[in-house]
Amino acid sequence: MSKKNESNVVFIGSKGVMTYVLSCITQLNEGDQELVLKARGRAISRAVDTAEIIRNRFITDAVIKDIKISTETIERSEGGTANVSAIEITIAKGKK
Amino acid sequence: MSKKNESNVVFIGSKGVMTYVLSCITQLNEGDQELVLKARGRAISRAVDTAEIIRNRFITDAVIKDIKISTETIERSEGGTANVSAIEITIAKGKK
Repeated sequence: MSKKNESNVVFIGSKGVMTYVLSCITQLNEGDQELVLKARGRAISRAVDTAEIIRNRFITDAVIKDIKISTETIERSEGGTANVSAIEITIAKGKK
Repeated sequence: MSKKNESNVVFIGSKGVMTYVLSCITQLNEGDQELVLKARGRAISRAVDTAEIIRNRFITDAVIKDIKISTETIERSEGGTANVSAIEITIAKGKK
C-alpha cells in the first residue's frame, strides 16, 4: 500500500549525495506529495545538491516549496554545547 | 556618505565565517536595508552560518527575507563544465 503522508523527512548526513537522491525519489514515487530535507553543519551543501539534482534530473515537475534556516544547539560528547546551522528544504511534486 | 542601495551582494567563499559576518554588519550599518549572501558548492554551509550569526548575535532585528537555491554551470580550468549548487540568502533589516 503506498504511503500518502503529506510530509516526510529525509535527514541528509555524510553519505554520498546520490544515496539521498535515490531515497527521496523512492519516497516521492511511492506517493508522498512532499518531502522535507533536513541537514546541519557541513551537510547543508549536500542537502542543496540533493534538492537540485532531484529537480533538474529526475523529477522535473518537482518544486522547491520552502526553505528555512535555523540554529540548533547540540550537546558535545566532551561536554558543553555548540551552535550549528541547519536547513530545511521542502520539495513538493507538481500538480498533474 | 552612507550608501542607500536596496540590495547589495556579498559573495561567501572559503575564508573564515567571521570575515563575512563583519563585512555584512559593516554594510548593514552603513545604511543598506538589504543584503544578498551568495555562495556556491561547499561554501553554502558557510553562507547559512553567516546569516544565522548575524541574526542571532549582532543584528537581532534582521530577518531572512528570501532564500533561493539554484544550479550554476561553471567551466573547469582543465576544460569541460561542471554543475554546482548555489544559494542566495536575502537579509533585510527590520523596520524601526
